[in-house]
Amino acid sequence: MITIHTKTITESTAGFCDIIDITAKFIEHISAVRMRSGMATLFVNGSTAALTTMEYEPGLVEDLKEFLEKHIPSDRRYHHDARWNDDNGFAHLRATLFGPSLAIPIVDGAPSLGTWQQVILLDFDNRPRRREIIVQLIGECQ
Amino acid sequence: MITIHTKTITESTAGFCDIIDITAKFIEHISAVRMRSGMATLFVNGSTAALTTMEYEPGLVEDLKEFLEKHIPSDRRYHHDARWNDDNGFAHLRATLFGPSLAIPIVDGAPSLGTWQQVILLDFDNRPRRREIIVQLIGECQ
Amino acid sequence: MITIHTKTITESTAGFCDIIDITAKFIEHISAVRMRSGMATLFVNGSTAALTTMEYEPGLVEDLKEFLEKHIPSDRRYHHDARWNDDNGFAHLRATLFGPSLAIPIVDGAPSLGTWQQVILLDFDNRPRRREIIVQLIGECQ
Repeated sequence: MITIHTKTITESTAGFCDIIDITAKFIEHISAVRMRSGMATLFVNGSTAALTTMEYEPGLVEDLKEFLEKHIPSDRRYHHDARWNDDNGFAHLRATLFGPSLAIPIVDGAPSLGTWQQVILLDFDNRPRRREIIVQLIGECQ
Repeated sequence: MITIHTKTITESTAGFCDIIDITAKFIEHISAVRMRSGMATLFVNGSTAALTTMEYEPGLVEDLKEFLEKHIPSDRRYHHDARWNDDNGFAHLRATLFGPSLAIPIVDGAPSLGTWQQVILLDFDNRPRRREIIVQLIGECQ
Repeated sequence: MITIHTKTITESTAGFCDIIDITAKFIEHISAVRMRSGMATLFVNGSTAALTTMEYEPGLVEDLKEFLEKHIPSDRRYHHDARWNDDNGFAHLRATLFGPSLAIPIVDGAPSLGTWQQVILLDFDNRPRRREIIVQLIGECQ
């Protein structure tokens, strides 16, 4: 029988392109409901954050920050900044590019991630934030 | 009981990086089938359009257009243009980068979007288009 | 009745931004289980590969390679390269940007792709690889 199990993961971030590995909390939810086979949707409900996967190691985290700073710099003005004066136009642009969602199959009780592939939260905002990631599992449990 | 509800949203666009907020039509479909808990897949079936989320306000729309014009300019030739002579290679590249799909959980009868987070259609083509976005809901209804 | 059908597609790639059309194998899986209506999740389990959709033709493949070489060049050093000395920092960055997953509705027995829209695997690594793409279908079969 197919059932639905939804949970919210929360993360306190430092902002400023903070990159956080949420793989363990994601797997914990799968284990808690004993899902064997199904689909996971992960979604961050904010317009200055995003989700993707990467090999989570300090060098690559630095590479990603440099890449974003080069192409969507934080030290210039954006049209968006004129609206709210919160100066985070760059954060919105970055989030729009990466997107808020991931879909990951669950096979034999585990997400089908590669060995060097972690699920990461990217917080692009220009201040610390408390982030919510909705993790929804649809599938068959034990 | 889990059921599937598929609907096609249509939008008439102006092309040229037209950015359209489709959140209301998306929510309308959730309400129409009275879904309480489940998963929404949104997909645009074209290779010069894309879906993502953003805070939909004119300043940010302008920022996104400028960003794309800078990094994938519309005023140069692409290899693709030699094939069909429709001069929209830039539109294809942009769409490939953003991707055609979004996965959004539905919790307590509503999509788990943030307050300032809208679902948007990006039409990158170099002419007006009629676009179809397939919205598929899988979950439990009232 | 809603059921789940998971299959792994394998592809031998040349690496170096190899772009492979996996649409036929994806459709084959839908046909094999006779799914009429449902949702497909496609996921590549590696941190130097990605999935997206595009019009698969040689000109556009060339455009995409040039775009990536310009913005995330393969001929410079990245912080990541210092870690493992495998010199593929550029491949990781590219994969992180595109993302590993796609969600595609299945309607009337077929994926809701546009006529000129193929599902593609992007292998960014700096050597040939054997890639696995997990294709998971959730829905109603005949």
